[in-house]
Amino acid sequence: MKQIVLKHALDHKPTAADFDVIELEAPACGEAQILVRIVHLSLDPYVGSRIRGRHMGEVPPEPGAGVIPGAAVAQVVESKIQGVSVGDWVHTMDAGWREYAALDAGAFRIIDPNAAPLAAHAGVLGMPGLTAWSGITQLAKVGDGDVVLVDAAAGTVGGTVGQIARLKGASKVIGIAGGPDKCAMVVNEYGFDACVDYKQDNWTAILDTEAPDGVSVHFENVGVSILNQITPRLKLYGRAILCGLAEQYHSDGPPPGLNAGMIVGKRAAIMGLIVYDFYPRWDEYVAEAGPWVTSGSLKFVEDRMDGLETAPALFEKLMNGQNMGKCVVGVASEQI
Amino acid sequence: MKQIVLKHALDHKPTAADFDVIELEAPACGEAQILVRIVHLSLDPYVGSRIRGRHMGEVPPEPGAGVIPGAAVAQVVESKIQGVSVGDWVHTMDAGWREYAALDAGAFRIIDPNAAPLAAHAGVLGMPGLTAWSGITQLAKVGDGDVVLVDAAAGTVGGTVGQIARLKGASKVIGIAGGPDKCAMVVNEYGFDACVDYKQDNWTAILDTEAPDGVSVHFENVGVSILNQITPRLKLYGRAILCGLAEQYHSDGPPPGLNAGMIVGKRAAIMGLIVYDFYPRWDEYVAEAGPWVTSGSLKFVEDRMDGLETAPALFEKLMNGQNMGKCVVGVASEQI
Repeated sequence: MKQIVLKHALDHKPTAADFDVIELEAPACGEAQILVRIVHLSLDPYVGSRIRGRHMGEVPPEPGAGVIPGAAVAQVVESKIQGVSVGDWVHTMDAGWREYAALDAGAFRIIDPNAAPLAAHAGVLGMPGLTAWSGITQLAKVGDGDVVLVDAAAGTVGGTVGQIARLKGASKVIGIAGGPDKCAMVVNEYGFDACVDYKQDNWTAILDTEAPDGVSVHFENVGVSILNQITPRLKLYGRAILCGLAEQYHSDGPPPGLNAGMIVGKRAAIMGLIVYDFYPRWDEYVAEAGPWVTSGSLKFVEDRMDGLETAPALFEKLMNGQNMGKCVVGVASEQI
Repeated sequence: MKQIVLKHALDHKPTAADFDVIELEAPACGEAQILVRIVHLSLDPYVGSRIRGRHMGEVPPEPGAGVIPGAAVAQVVESKIQGVSVGDWVHTMDAGWREYAALDAGAFRIIDPNAAPLAAHAGVLGMPGLTAWSGITQLAKVGDGDVVLVDAAAGTVGGTVGQIARLKGASKVIGIAGGPDKCAMVVNEYGFDACVDYKQDNWTAILDTEAPDGVSVHFENVGVSILNQITPRLKLYGRAILCGLAEQYHSDGPPPGLNAGMIVGKRAAIMGLIVYDFYPRWDEYVAEAGPWVTSGSLKFVEDRMDGLETAPALFEKLMNGQNMGKCVVGVASEQI
């Protein structure tokens, strides 16, 4: 089978040139394991910091051999776990950038191929979607009349945040994204009320015209430099979910700090979100959101390339913020 | 009557030399007002920033004439409000540093002189106590088993935070204060389990021995430079109340910012508290805490001086953190 590996230890934001493709034996299916063929491989921003060793102290993969972490939708080709059959579909966070993986019982969830499109589990029903749902429904508890703002709104987390907020009763949903193409997608595909292009010098003034009375919930996917611009624009008692800090994963030097005086002045609640805490509720999320996906009230957009060897190029695009929608590598066909 | 005024506009932390005493006519009791004689005048840290014009954009008092803001326990000497009688006791945030004040109906609460010592309303049952109660019971929702930390623990807010946390079920209450005398007071008078002297170089190491498994609730009275030391010591899902930012009210240059990565890593909730929001629940607080004060389960310590003309010197002591307990000026005797 094919596997993508690092060429060398990384000390910079990853580019396609930092990866190699190797060929090796597919792993064996051990006792109490399943062997899966990886079909839809999700490429996610957190991987960029993780393979640099900047992600919560985890050790980066060994150059030339280590598995690059990745979530995927996969199909069982061999099973030594009772109740799991060849042909079953699973979602796993432990797939990796390769064609086959052997998984322990705790490392996957069985998914229903008829409840929603399989590829949706690599994005809107996968970790990015669970992240959005957790922040909106479990932490911010968005309800009727909330004015909800989210940055990186063209991404799967951001786009799903706005759509779920709307489904939960938000009266207005505003995105922040980079460039007119992404903003158009946020409004036209995800159905946000507005999207502000932060690459415009006067973007905060434009935001003020879109939310003249302030924002009640903000979902932060980028970092403190954006959040410090939003905090003054919160309504009193506003809530902000602090989720992604991409800007500081790849910057050197100390990151900017949150404006504490403004948090007090707004009586704001700033809440840190790590999606891992909500993995035990993943099936609950899929049960709620699967019908939204099927009915078209929760849309997802893919930036897809086919063949495992395309992963490094697609990942570079993701790292540079040039992707339009969820980056998914079609590693194999759904049909055998 | 006597009144304290500013000698000049302030551009530094106030000292006793910045104030004058003037003599003037007591105010008249207007229609729908009461006239009160001020008995226990509370000196509070927020006044230091407010008279410098640094407090939420409010205009500082005019030198030579403007009233320095202050809360007080006062007695009605004339009433043009139905249902309020001469001799009634009131608490008001709008007393000011003077001997008499005329108050509109919305500017005071009637208090029961038999339910708790009158002076308690200038501190533990006054704004500092309400601040502590609001943070502990309404925002952090402290309950059984919480490990609660508070800085400026020798102050009335801090001392009350710890005691109310204990009354609400906290399993351990730890203070942070400056110097051995204050720490001894926190433990011996307020009954905290421990108090760490932040003037010791290794104070965070001492804190770690007192809270080896971390802190579930922190109440921040000082500023970001302390909170950034505490956030890494929060338990997962810890809550921090951001209440006082004294360090930045009097410093020039940009204040330090909160460490966002640590907030995410700890899944912490950081909540801004402004006590003003809880004024409508003041009577509820007094109804709950009055019996605690009377029974001795909620203690308060006063740093008291007598005579309005002592207010500037006592305030300087407060501004320099040299006070031991609540700064109260005995402006007049409770007995006429």
